[in-house]
Amino acid sequence: MELTERQAHIVEIVKESSPITGEQIAARLDLTRATLRPDLTILTMAGLLEARPRVGYFYRERHEPSAVAERLRRIRVGDFKSVPAVVRESVSIYEAIVAMFTQNVGSLIVVTEDRVLAGMVSRKDLLKAALGKNDLQQVPVGVIMTRMPNIFMTTPDEPVLDAARKLVQHQVDSLPVVEGFIDEQGDERYEVVGRFTKTNISKLFLDIGKA
Amino acid sequence: MELTERQAHIVEIVKESSPITGEQIAARLDLTRATLRPDLTILTMAGLLEARPRVGYFYRERHEPSAVAERLRRIRVGDFKSVPAVVRESVSIYEAIVAMFTQNVGSLIVVTEDRVLAGMVSRKDLLKAALGKNDLQQVPVGVIMTRMPNIFMTTPDEPVLDAARKLVQHQVDSLPVVEGFIDEQGDERYEVVGRFTKTNISKLFLDIGKA
Repeated sequence: MELTERQAHIVEIVKESSPITGEQIAARLDLTRATLRPDLTILTMAGLLEARPRVGYFYRERHEPSAVAERLRRIRVGDFKSVPAVVRESVSIYEAIVAMFTQNVGSLIVVTEDRVLAGMVSRKDLLKAALGKNDLQQVPVGVIMTRMPNIFMTTPDEPVLDAARKLVQHQVDSLPVVEGFIDEQGDERYEVVGRFTKTNISKLFLDIGKA
Repeated sequence: MELTERQAHIVEIVKESSPITGEQIAARLDLTRATLRPDLTILTMAGLLEARPRVGYFYRERHEPSAVAERLRRIRVGDFKSVPAVVRESVSIYEAIVAMFTQNVGSLIVVTEDRVLAGMVSRKDLLKAALGKNDLQQVPVGVIMTRMPNIFMTTPDEPVLDAARKLVQHQVDSLPVVEGFIDEQGDERYEVVGRFTKTNISKLFLDIGKA
């Protein structure tokens, strides 16, 4: 497990002084109990600490490597992706907005005629365009989209954890799921085979919670 | 664990005929291996099935109730919520759009003067308004927001799993985190203390994966 500095510090404190309550750990770190709670949850979840009600936290000498994390790492994007919501580069901004409403998605994948990834367009992009001076019926969505190669992508084989990290770190709601190939000019292209979103992660999270 | 009909069927098949490969289970159900993979992942994760490479799936006679789900159920919204992104009911639609861009959020919580929940406004609502004939500088956001009591909410004490279920089932990106109180007229009101989004779930999912 990759511990943050604060989590490592908490583990040290519990090692030295168990059993120790959350309040006592917080006092030692000069933090509030509320600030500390997520870290304590994660450390307990990871099996590094054991929480005994009305007693306090113990360090677990022989904690097993977390089976949860291990199993999570084996789950692949391809098994939990959604069908892609796509529009062609040549459709107007207005048509893209309509497509976004009718498909009820937060972003659209923009493709060339042959389903090859060209870019992405988000609700935010469309809102900006709607406020601007563009003629929404005339200007193609290709003009306002975020264009390749500036697109964060995933593949069916990628672990969902890595895809989740991309979504969180790059602050995007959706990743196109692609399969790479080499075109006739010898350039690398990406065929769109799905999309992977924070909604997919939320559903998977629910499935795990039911399990 | 609440099994779906298909998952229960898979368990029956594995009980009868283990070890059995994914392909064989798929053939018995007249489905493709790919269709089945998410179910097999969830059942293995839940500890009901055991997957042995190059052998197949076994049913686990004495599977422990899943420690993962048990621990997940103890995680509360209050420990993983974000600070709320709010605007007052009286600000114009244009000002709300600016607030949404500057705060980089997918939806805004609309409050009365005293931080009491009045409604929610999403990027989708703002995009619709921008396309319409409203004077964005003049019309207050209160006119286009989704208004109480039609708002899905959560509380600091609610398990994140229940909040996740609300987000997924109702297809919303964000829930206001509230604390209820009774006002001077004897009506129930909700003070906004945070927001809980699919991004919060994605981050928690990452934390669990690291654990």
